[in-house]
Amino acid sequence: MAGSNIGTNIKLSTWGESHGKALGVVIDGFPAGMELYEEDIQKFLDRRKPGTSAATTSRKEDDLVEILSGVFDGKTTGTPISLMVRNTSQKSSDYSEIASYYRPGHADYGFDMKYGFRDYRGGGRSSGRETIGRVAAGALCSKLLSQMGISICAYTKSIGDIQIDYSKFDKDLISKTPSSMPDADADKRAMELIQKAREDQDSLGGVIECRITGVPAGIGEPVFDKLDALLSRAVMSIGAVKAIEIGDGISVSTYRGSDNNDAFTIVDGKVSKETNHCGGILGGISDGSEIILRAHVKPTPSISRTQHTINQSGESIEINIHGRHDPVVVPRAVVVVEAMCAYTILDLMISNMSSQADNIIKFYK
Amino acid sequence: MAGSNIGTNIKLSTWGESHGKALGVVIDGFPAGMELYEEDIQKFLDRRKPGTSAATTSRKEDDLVEILSGVFDGKTTGTPISLMVRNTSQKSSDYSEIASYYRPGHADYGFDMKYGFRDYRGGGRSSGRETIGRVAAGALCSKLLSQMGISICAYTKSIGDIQIDYSKFDKDLISKTPSSMPDADADKRAMELIQKAREDQDSLGGVIECRITGVPAGIGEPVFDKLDALLSRAVMSIGAVKAIEIGDGISVSTYRGSDNNDAFTIVDGKVSKETNHCGGILGGISDGSEIILRAHVKPTPSISRTQHTINQSGESIEINIHGRHDPVVVPRAVVVVEAMCAYTILDLMISNMSSQADNIIKFYK
Amino acid sequence: MAGSNIGTNIKLSTWGESHGKALGVVIDGFPAGMELYEEDIQKFLDRRKPGTSAATTSRKEDDLVEILSGVFDGKTTGTPISLMVRNTSQKSSDYSEIASYYRPGHADYGFDMKYGFRDYRGGGRSSGRETIGRVAAGALCSKLLSQMGISICAYTKSIGDIQIDYSKFDKDLISKTPSSMPDADADKRAMELIQKAREDQDSLGGVIECRITGVPAGIGEPVFDKLDALLSRAVMSIGAVKAIEIGDGISVSTYRGSDNNDAFTIVDGKVSKETNHCGGILGGISDGSEIILRAHVKPTPSISRTQHTINQSGESIEINIHGRHDPVVVPRAVVVVEAMCAYTILDLMISNMSSQADNIIKFYK
Amino acid sequence: MAGSNIGTNIKLSTWGESHGKALGVVIDGFPAGMELYEEDIQKFLDRRKPGTSAATTSRKEDDLVEILSGVFDGKTTGTPISLMVRNTSQKSSDYSEIASYYRPGHADYGFDMKYGFRDYRGGGRSSGRETIGRVAAGALCSKLLSQMGISICAYTKSIGDIQIDYSKFDKDLISKTPSSMPDADADKRAMELIQKAREDQDSLGGVIECRITGVPAGIGEPVFDKLDALLSRAVMSIGAVKAIEIGDGISVSTYRGSDNNDAFTIVDGKVSKETNHCGGILGGISDGSEIILRAHVKPTPSISRTQHTINQSGESIEINIHGRHDPVVVPRAVVVVEAMCAYTILDLMISNMSSQADNIIKFYK
Repeated sequence: MAGSNIGTNIKLSTWGESHGKALGVVIDGFPAGMELYEEDIQKFLDRRKPGTSAATTSRKEDDLVEILSGVFDGKTTGTPISLMVRNTSQKSSDYSEIASYYRPGHADYGFDMKYGFRDYRGGGRSSGRETIGRVAAGALCSKLLSQMGISICAYTKSIGDIQIDYSKFDKDLISKTPSSMPDADADKRAMELIQKAREDQDSLGGVIECRITGVPAGIGEPVFDKLDALLSRAVMSIGAVKAIEIGDGISVSTYRGSDNNDAFTIVDGKVSKETNHCGGILGGISDGSEIILRAHVKPTPSISRTQHTINQSGESIEINIHGRHDPVVVPRAVVVVEAMCAYTILDLMISNMSSQADNIIKFYK
Repeated sequence: MAGSNIGTNIKLSTWGESHGKALGVVIDGFPAGMELYEEDIQKFLDRRKPGTSAATTSRKEDDLVEILSGVFDGKTTGTPISLMVRNTSQKSSDYSEIASYYRPGHADYGFDMKYGFRDYRGGGRSSGRETIGRVAAGALCSKLLSQMGISICAYTKSIGDIQIDYSKFDKDLISKTPSSMPDADADKRAMELIQKAREDQDSLGGVIECRITGVPAGIGEPVFDKLDALLSRAVMSIGAVKAIEIGDGISVSTYRGSDNNDAFTIVDGKVSKETNHCGGILGGISDGSEIILRAHVKPTPSISRTQHTINQSGESIEINIHGRHDPVVVPRAVVVVEAMCAYTILDLMISNMSSQADNIIKFYK
Repeated sequence: MAGSNIGTNIKLSTWGESHGKALGVVIDGFPAGMELYEEDIQKFLDRRKPGTSAATTSRKEDDLVEILSGVFDGKTTGTPISLMVRNTSQKSSDYSEIASYYRPGHADYGFDMKYGFRDYRGGGRSSGRETIGRVAAGALCSKLLSQMGISICAYTKSIGDIQIDYSKFDKDLISKTPSSMPDADADKRAMELIQKAREDQDSLGGVIECRITGVPAGIGEPVFDKLDALLSRAVMSIGAVKAIEIGDGISVSTYRGSDNNDAFTIVDGKVSKETNHCGGILGGISDGSEIILRAHVKPTPSISRTQHTINQSGESIEINIHGRHDPVVVPRAVVVVEAMCAYTILDLMISNMSSQADNIIKFYK
Repeated sequence: MAGSNIGTNIKLSTWGESHGKALGVVIDGFPAGMELYEEDIQKFLDRRKPGTSAATTSRKEDDLVEILSGVFDGKTTGTPISLMVRNTSQKSSDYSEIASYYRPGHADYGFDMKYGFRDYRGGGRSSGRETIGRVAAGALCSKLLSQMGISICAYTKSIGDIQIDYSKFDKDLISKTPSSMPDADADKRAMELIQKAREDQDSLGGVIECRITGVPAGIGEPVFDKLDALLSRAVMSIGAVKAIEIGDGISVSTYRGSDNNDAFTIVDGKVSKETNHCGGILGGISDGSEIILRAHVKPTPSISRTQHTINQSGESIEINIHGRHDPVVVPRAVVVVEAMCAYTILDLMISNMSSQADNIIKFYK
């Protein structure tokens, strides 16, 4: 089945493998008339680039984007926008030995069972490089959302057991700390933890939190296309994410209703809420408050210490995975979470334009 | 936008409001030739019926299903199966006063902002009765899955802070305990906690766990239609769910890779894993192990104690919500989680049939 | 596969068989706030009712519609609108003998090959009664379109070799003549031809023409969702239609470009065209002129004269199909063509609202 | 809206403008394990290349395809196949003057109304070069279909008033005659007619016929996804097509049922039909006979003789369109029709695999 595309009004179709010729995305249905330059997209792609710190792999990936279609005279034309990033520094030889066995924590076995064989080079389609297309598309969506006063801010909330301290939250740090944490102290400790894991030939997980402000009330569709349902699907579709929380998330199961309900109130003449346990979404529809979600990311499965597994002949073997791997993918995945949220919200905001008959009639007058 | 339908090969289109004439679902694309009787569906609907214990509302809801199309001579025909449940015991008068204000924890405000007005009777489309269509459809999907050796078992894992004890797990109890817990002791304590909450005019949340066995390896599509992504969307789309975990879920963020990776091994000549931290899904594709997920459910927002909110004129008011509400929706939502998982897995299993060119060629020989 | 649903922003999901309990449609995504009463829909359904003249079957079909959901206080709520028509006068006994053989011109053989068996009563899902759901949905779409100044007018252009004379075109006659022709003379001759065919135990085909005025320029999406592509799919999906023409249609293959090109011009300060060979659609996008299409309808395959065919055992047999059949389906199909056009255009008009970034930004200001 | 993608199990997403950097297609959901080389695709693309005869433009278009993803070790991997063709010989300067006015017969005006502006170079997205992505995708689909014994053969049936003579039908000629006609005499006369039109600074239309053999009975889904409905949408979405016929097409409106019905019979122990007026499709489902359709193509709207039109300021002007244009697009569009039919049938054949519950159960045993 066609599993690499998503969306209703704007459709993303991503493609590419870690060690193929290129990776990219086709964005079909993006509205016309928005200014767009390659720099707008490159800025986002650079945020997922490795090699900038000890937190990431030492692979060099330039990941330069090329706009192939859908933009004319510096503006989107309304027709499909095709974006491509050529693979340049990938060495297939790194991976030749993994062809014959199933790496623990990876999709190798599932791919073989599904397709009868797999592109084993660097994970192929299940590589983290697959997110290049998502991030490129997210750059466009974020740009349009920002013109409507909507901002999306994701950051590393924790790595291993190192949590950020909200009292030290400094948004500017997110793009500066190697951990993508908004707290310099936590970042320092997280980097030490990462260094330790690296020395142990091991890896770490963490939590990414995303806050979205400026979304008007009324976004999201009842039942299956609830805002939180589609955000969950979009974020859970990022490799390595194993849990999603909206607002207070898992905590609400131990709350009482009287604690969990957020009282509506009026602040500065505007509808507001006294608290925001619900994370800005009630019954699947935005309530105008800040939208908050968290993605829980597993530790990188590629570790160089000895592991047990089986090969394609069903024999038990011991393996040592070589190659350049991130000891933790969380810092680089922050922009991927932002991209998926941007896309999901923009698509639903477009859908919402036709919620009322009067709005359609007015549009065509 | 059209948010009440879901699916690729099998499409569900649910409809109906809590106090309208009826609720139902159209299931389009369900394969032909499966025996189907109204009893198959009624059995599932009965599991979400209220009024059977102190854990649920005292409303009487018969919820008798009628098959309107798509079944001939006791078998599905391959054409759309339309299922309907008439509303019988709903009293609109219970709800007339809530028309003018926004209940905390409910979608009232979002609906008004989205649509310009709302069917305020009992929540209308955002009522828990909306799940009738899902459960009816889930009954069909479960029946077909069971013929392929796949079983889906959801149960209450916790209510408030009362957790089940896995050493006392008895599957048969799930359908017998008022809490839907598989542990008689935990059930007893949960029921006491519910009674206490009821006396306090308050409500509780909890956790539903779902285990799916028999799914072959290879189910789920790379990238956006990952098995866990679609399960998350399906389960998060159930009202009141605020978090989803796959396998070890939120815990993985504090694991190291060497702890979290599940070693592949051979057991009885079959591919297996030494552990199952990943919950049966790697890279979005099933690995043949048990699939495990958890849905975290918020406390019922309708509580009868006094709450603050605003009315449609933006005035702060105090309200007391009357009516018959579940002090906790978890026990009744168990079958809804099962239904959404059944549907998601069946749809993806059908998609997977065309993953290999040889399978298509063989099919048409 | 799920083949009984259609659409992007508004999704129709029709269901029901000719001799099942009921037929209907779920309309998901229809905008909120439009006044809607059962009479609005009944008016359309009555136009496809048989038994009003010699042109149609003598079966009595009351086809009373019931609104089951999605309407509150006389207005659409934005949530799924479920419409149902109970089957009342169907006699299954009429059809029992056709279970064992394949009627020429019918889908019997295809259904058996596809599904392994079929609901043979009256054609089941492939009966003309399947269009009840389409017409009911079309009534809603037409009502909303009319509030935007868009009118859709279909009529019988020919039956057999009897053509209407455009110089005698009288729109009011369409709903009054038994043939649905806008020309009283042609109607008279067509009815004589039908009477003759009936006496011969035979049947006739014809042509339905549809004219849509008021559609603004810019509707339709480049490439696969061209306005004419989606209209063709929608109209060709009506049973018995075997050809579709847009504008001058088949004639254009013998034109020269200098004859076929419609010169743009200005009339009353508005963009117009000197001719309209293209039928209001250029490059798949409306140009603001009248949209014109024609559907060519085959003669009713159910005829009572002796025919050759085979039975399920592969034996050659002779059959005489009994039962009450329309000698020509064209007059009753006119409203079905209107319905499919109304739906297609409304769905595309909604899609078009997000064609320009500025319109989205403006909407949310 | 996203109008450049199509499909259910296999999704095509085409992109690119005539004078942009490149054009291409992403094919998502194509099954794994089929051998695929660039030559397989190039062969199809070469069939739509211009410059090979007087029937086509003198532009040189190399149109070399590059496989960017989804193929490993010479086989499709099941993941998205990205195909790209770089634009090389396009000269934007040819088109600069058309920026300010609306060419008759073109989508210029519709694009401007829809998007607020347009990429005016060579028609941009509405150029015939848009079909490169379709043809590239069609090559893959045709290859897989041929492995199931299905062959698709399209050819020019007529150009202007020159018709082929079926008694002289020679399939081998299709790829050899400049007109793509299977009849050498008709081809000769057609080429003379084209030469005459060219001298007159005018253009011609024609008819493409397509015959598909080997499709098993049972393909196509009842109601909206009828085989003929989806073929019509797919073929009508090709620019310049203004009418579609299935089987006897427009002729059936003047037939009587007794003439039009095709009697089922047994030939060589297989179900067959004595005639094939229906063109292999009954009730929207294939009946195992040859599928026949015709696309009626309008004359090329770009002609160099003087034409009337208006400019963007609404002033009446006279224009002479320069540039290198095909005097008739029919010969080059033949392979596009084949491609769209191949794609449509393959997608529906995959859908059909899940029509029966037993087939799903058997697949997973």
